[in-house]
Parts: sequence; C-alpha cells; structure tokens
Amino acid sequence: MSTTTTLLDETHDPALKSWVASANAPDTDFPLQNLPFGRFRRRGSGEPWRIGVAIGEQVLDLKLALQQCPWPRDTEPLLQPLAAGDLLEPMQRGAAARRQLRLALSQALREGSEQSPFLELCLAPQADIELALPCRIGEYTDFYTGIHHATAVGKLFRPDNPLLPNYKWVPIGYHGRVSSIVVSGQAVHRPRGQLMLPDAPAPVFEPARRLDYELELGVLVAAGNADGTPIPMAQADDDWFGLVLLNDWSARDIQAWEYQPLGPFLSKNFGTTISPWVVTAEALAPFRRPFVRPDGDPQPLPHLDSEANRAHGAIDIELEVWLQTQSMREQGLPPQRLSQSNFRDAYWSVAQLITHHSSNGCNLWPGDLLGTGTQSGPQPGQGGSMLELSAGGKQPIALANGETRTFLADGDTVILRAHCAKPGARRIGFGECAGTVLPPR
Amino acid sequence: MSTTTTLLDETHDPALKSWVASANAPDTDFPLQNLPFGRFRRRGSGEPWRIGVAIGEQVLDLKLALQQCPWPRDTEPLLQPLAAGDLLEPMQRGAAARRQLRLALSQALREGSEQSPFLELCLAPQADIELALPCRIGEYTDFYTGIHHATAVGKLFRPDNPLLPNYKWVPIGYHGRVSSIVVSGQAVHRPRGQLMLPDAPAPVFEPARRLDYELELGVLVAAGNADGTPIPMAQADDDWFGLVLLNDWSARDIQAWEYQPLGPFLSKNFGTTISPWVVTAEALAPFRRPFVRPDGDPQPLPHLDSEANRAHGAIDIELEVWLQTQSMREQGLPPQRLSQSNFRDAYWSVAQLITHHSSNGCNLWPGDLLGTGTQSGPQPGQGGSMLELSAGGKQPIALANGETRTFLADGDTVILRAHCAKPGARRIGFGECAGTVLPPR
Repeated sequence: MSTTTTLLDETHDPALKSWVASANAPDTDFPLQNLPFGRFRRRGSGEPWRIGVAIGEQVLDLKLALQQCPWPRDTEPLLQPLAAGDLLEPMQRGAAARRQLRLALSQALREGSEQSPFLELCLAPQADIELALPCRIGEYTDFYTGIHHATAVGKLFRPDNPLLPNYKWVPIGYHGRVSSIVVSGQAVHRPRGQLMLPDAPAPVFEPARRLDYELELGVLVAAGNADGTPIPMAQADDDWFGLVLLNDWSARDIQAWEYQPLGPFLSKNFGTTISPWVVTAEALAPFRRPFVRPDGDPQPLPHLDSEANRAHGAIDIELEVWLQTQSMREQGLPPQRLSQSNFRDAYWSVAQLITHHSSNGCNLWPGDLLGTGTQSGPQPGQGGSMLELSAGGKQPIALANGETRTFLADGDTVILRAHCAKPGARRIGFGECAGTVLPPR
Repeated sequence: MSTTTTLLDETHDPALKSWVASANAPDTDFPLQNLPFGRFRRRGSGEPWRIGVAIGEQVLDLKLALQQCPWPRDTEPLLQPLAAGDLLEPMQRGAAARRQLRLALSQALREGSEQSPFLELCLAPQADIELALPCRIGEYTDFYTGIHHATAVGKLFRPDNPLLPNYKWVPIGYHGRVSSIVVSGQAVHRPRGQLMLPDAPAPVFEPARRLDYELELGVLVAAGNADGTPIPMAQADDDWFGLVLLNDWSARDIQAWEYQPLGPFLSKNFGTTISPWVVTAEALAPFRRPFVRPDGDPQPLPHLDSEANRAHGAIDIELEVWLQTQSMREQGLPPQRLSQSNFRDAYWSVAQLITHHSSNGCNLWPGDLLGTGTQSGPQPGQGGSMLELSAGGKQPIALANGETRTFLADGDTVILRAHCAKPGARRIGFGECAGTVLPPR
C-alpha cells in the first residue's frame, strides 16, 4: 500500500448516485460515498439504540435493513451485530471486513439497487431521530498534534521558546476522562474550580472565567492490542475505524493553576463533546495525501516512520468552528464562523499516534478514543481555540452582531464542522459537533 | 460523625475471635476484624470468578456461603450480587448497607457462630486460589498526595523551588490508563520508549534504563456521581469502598523526556499493579486520626474542608517496600525491605480527593480507582521510589547480598505491604502487591 490509489475502490467513484434523493445534493455531508455509522433511535421512542448509516437527510436503520431485505450471504454476519446496536464488534473485524461491509452498503443504496424497494421501508428522517455516543468508548487519550496550536499557546507562556524540545520527536499526549464525554447536542455546564487571580494571595473556588473550546478530531481505535504487543506502523493504519469531531472544552484559568507538574485535569474533564457520525477510514481514503515534514525538521524515529505514512499519512479535512451566542439566537441570526483550518497540517499522523501509544506495551482497547489535539492553521485567525483567536484574552473577537468575546459566555453554542473535498472526488462531511454552555450548577 | 469513635461498632472489638483458627494468629493480615473482599477462583479450575472474603489463611466463598447457609433475611440481597461474582453492585449501596454486610460476615465467622458448620464447607485455602482484579475498574486517576515525595522529586529538578506553588492548595492529579492495570503476581515487561540520553543530539527508542516502582494506595470509589453533581466533603467520606496497595511502575527516563507540557503518559501506562484484597473503609475505621496541616501551612479552601475531615481524615497505615532480586531468589534469600512510610503523612485525605475530583462536575463511576501518589516519609530512607532512595540514580542502594541498585533490574520482584496497628485495636493487613520485572518484549 504505497500510494493513495490502492486505498480506493468502486465505492469511491464520484459518479455514483443513490436512490435516496437527498444523498445526491451537492452540498450534503452524507452522499453515497460517505456512509458513516451512528447509534440512534426515533426521538422520544425510548426504544433500544440501534446502528444506522447516514445517507442524505435519512438514516438507514440496520436493524430493519437486516430483517426486511436480502443481503449477500457473507455480509450478513457483519450486519448482525450492527442490527443489535453494537458497533464495537464489527470495528474489530479488520480492514477487509470493513471494506466488504462498505461495498455491500454502497451497492444497496445505489441507484438501481434491487434492494431499494425493501430498504425504502428502513429509512428514518434524521430530523426525527436522536443520537447517542456511537459506541462504548474504551479509554480516552488526547494528543497534541497541532503544531500551530502548540506554538501559539507556547508563545503565550514562553515567548522565546514556544515549542518544547520534545515536540518534533514525541507525539505528546495524555490520558483524558471518558465518563464526561457526551454526544453533540448535550449542553455542558460551566465548571467551578480553583482560580489564582492576578496578584491574589490565594486561589478562590469560583466558576471558570476563561472557558474555551478546542477544535479537534477524535480517532476511534478498531481492534487494538489486547496482549500489549506494540502495533507497528504497517499495521497501525488499518487499526483505526474512523473519525469524529471532538470539542475538548477547556477552562483556561483552572488549567493555568492546576497543570504543573502532571498536566491538565479538572480544566478538561468536566465535558468533551463528540459528533455522532463516525466517518470511516475507508470513506476518507480519497483525501489521503503525502505526509511530509517541513524542511529542516527531524525525520521521525524509525519506529514512527514508514513508506506508506510518507505516501499518504496525512488527511485533507477542512475544519471549521462556528459560534451562535444567545443574543444571536434571540435575534434570529445564524451561527457565525470563527475560524477554519485543516487536518493535513497536523504534525503527527493517525498511524503514528497508534504506534506511539502502544510502543511501550500499553494495550489499546477497541473503541478507544484518541483526540488529535487542537487543529489550528498556520495563519493568524486560524486558531482552533478562543485562547489563540483572542491572544490569550487580550484581543477581543468582534462578532457581526456587535458582541465581542475573549472566552465563552453562558448561552454560547459552539459548533464544529468538517468536510473533505477535492477535484475528482465526491465531497463528504462530518455533520455537526454542537454544544451549548450552561451556567454553573 | 465528628470523632473516630462514632465510626466504630462491635465488629471492631479486638477481643473477637474466629472459628477459623488461622484468623486468630497475632500476625495475620486477615483477622476477623478485617474481612477484605477479593475476586477469586480455585487455581486452574477455569470456573467463573467469584467474590470471597479473606479470613486468616482461608477465603470464604460467598457463592457457596449463600447456597449452603442460612443468613439474616435482610443480608441476603446484599450477598446475592457477591455470590454472582459482582463486587460493584454492593459497592454502590451506601455505607449503611456496607456496615450491615460487615456485621453479618463478622457474626458468621465468629467463634460460636451457628453458621460455622455450614460455612466450614465454604472455605478454600488461599494457597489454592488465584485472584483477579477485585472489580471492573471504572476509570483511573492518580493523585500526588505524598508531600515528602513531591518535595524530594521536585528537589532533583528544581533545587531552589522543590514544591510548586499550587501544591498546598490543589490536590494535584492526572488521569491514568485502566487497560494496563494488573493484579498482584502478574509480571510487567520493561517498556521501550524514547530516551534523551545526556549530550545526545536526538532521542533513541530503547528499553527504559531507569525503571522504578512507586509505593501508593488505591481508593475504590463506591457510588460516585453519575449526574455530575459535585460530591461535598460531608458525603465524600462515605463514598469510597476501600483501599488496595498500588505500584505505579514508572520509567523515569521516558518520563523526563515526554512529560512537558501535558504530564506523564508512556512512562506510566505500560503497567500498574494493585493488590487483590480490598480493605474496606469500615475495617480501617479504628485507624482514623486527626488530619492536621503543619503550622504555617494554608488551610484547605472551604469546599475541601470539614470538621469530620479534621477530626479523622487521616488513616494510620504503615507501608513497606520489599525487593527480591533474581540473585536473591537463586540464593534462596528472602525479600529485603527497602523502605517504610505511613499514609498518615499524606497531604490530602481520601475525602478531599473525591470532593476535588467531582468539584467541577466531573462524574465519577463506581469502581473508579484513585491512586494516592507515592507515599514517602519525612525521613531520609523513607522514599517510596528508587528515584528518591538513590537520589536520582546518583547513590546506589546497597543490598544485603552485595548487589546494588539505582533503578530496577530485570528479574527484580517488588513487593508492597501494608498494615494498621495500634494499642486497643486488632492489627489488620493488606496482603501483598507483588510484581516482577521481565525483559523488554
């Protein structure tokens, strides 16, 4: 697998159309070439969660789809756990099985499919569903692959020496908290915590004043390494299932006081929001690109390097942060875009994160979530957090309705969006990762 | 509950004896006054794990005990999940239920108990069993409550300013990795990792050279706060189920290179060993003592303070580290004690850790494990890690058989032990937390 081309198959053909009309709209996040998985139920039904595939403005209910419709015989075992609401089991089956499942779903949803009369009965409008976390999250690790973020934040604390000496050698990461991971749409309370205010003799315990978001992607680990055998680079790129958007809510003032010497803790673990639809590694294949270190930077150590990684370790994903304040909602104004960046600027690839994480014998679990760290772009205004956009709170961000922000206010809704687009490929998107800040409990 | 006395009941009476003879030996870790829980099965049986209570050199099989023996009617619902191998369910029932269960077990195992003819059939020698982790661990947080450890380690890096300014205000902690937590007796491989050797131009990826242990206790959270409501101090001291010993294996050279700015990661998550028997909060009641800040130190912020915590927030637990090298084993020599310290010297109480952890709205799960951080004593030679005992590797530790150590060698077995003893109370112990270092994979 030395070039992107070998990752592609007929499911990526941009000319393919679906019998689900809304999937053929040019700006849909969920055309036939995407096919992301989510865990859903009809809103208010209280029925058990089930796995579905987003297609246009609909979701294909895989429980019904298995009951109602003939499938290729070798696909049925892959569909059975999904029909039972379990995404973890098929996640562990390996890349070949995942490609086979994708092909079957693509064929079933294509214009002219003989399955369409049955599957029409298995659709639900996305407007009528509620979504849960896509699977039981194993453990959560947050990395720090955004070199422009690391540099910008480092500059605020160490103007002369923004990037620490280990950054270009070690994919820096730390363990996060799973229990407070929530799905898009759930609100997050502003946390209380210890704040050391300027010139104060002692900290106070008060609601955070410098509440922020962080624009990240989250990687869902596929099979992992139960026995602790390190996962080499050649295997790592097949051992992730897909990506979600991730908002790593952060209380900067709690963080500044607590983080020495063991890292962030209460400044982060009050809430992390992820998007509900898992965009698979296979769907992202057309958007892989060479992963090249800038001139003069050290090459990765051999265990973090591979031909394939250099050939297509990067992924071209356009990322956006949008904000809708309470006033904007009350005035009927839509969300406003705050920044744009791209995951291709990450300093470490997904495979490198997995190989690094397991390189000491640490065992990864299926469904482990790996945050990529904040994805800021190289240009001013491309910061993936308010900390960067407001220069540490010193330069208020002016909003179109006349409001300003240095950090988040109660009632603010933060929306992360992402999509992939390039000539010769069908545009795909991630849906939304949205969360509203509530006042402290 | 303003004094220790109110925590005591008839189960703590030091005069009580058991019909299990070995429980009456003066130096047993598991007299009638202890009654710790563990998950076990007959060695090599492959049968499902079940919950047992250690008593002397035996274990009472609670599955058999519920089948074979009459119990007070209101105790049976508490025993049922235990009989099914589930410690988590009773952990969540609250302190009153835990005390009721303890009383029933104490009465059943006492000399003269009418249940003894039945329960004699429900004992297994501890020599014939294998033990698992006591329950499914929820999430793992490691704290840093050992002020003498924090000071000693800080001195190695910052001689002028060993203790950071937040230490006496914030119970410093960070998230750890659950997947690599193992039970006493399982070996741990020396990890490989990035090491930045002195004067080297670039790091190398090699087996860690400065492998260390850390002497800690682990707290098992009882019910937690599923809804994210902070747990106030008044409630926190009832919301932990018990303690285990915990060895936070640490690769100091990996840690030194990776830990800035987000804290320890691969230097810790290759393995953490805990002891199998959970010594309950109730068993520890006689050893509670006033929790007093040294003169001149700030008092805790109000949300981390309470009358009860000041009255009996500390626990008098004598802690020990023992080492048996491969040569000692080959020479038939017993383990050698390296250090002693006491948990009463911790700077933060268990209740303060729980209150702090949930103070921002973070939701704790039943069975969450909270490491206390390394428990070093105030005297030289009381360091809870080799880093301290060898002054950062500069002063080799001389062993009785003529070997020396600055850090751990392959084949070394580290054994943590702990007990509580004071006049007027029956001595109780924790059993062992043992692990052997294997060569790198």
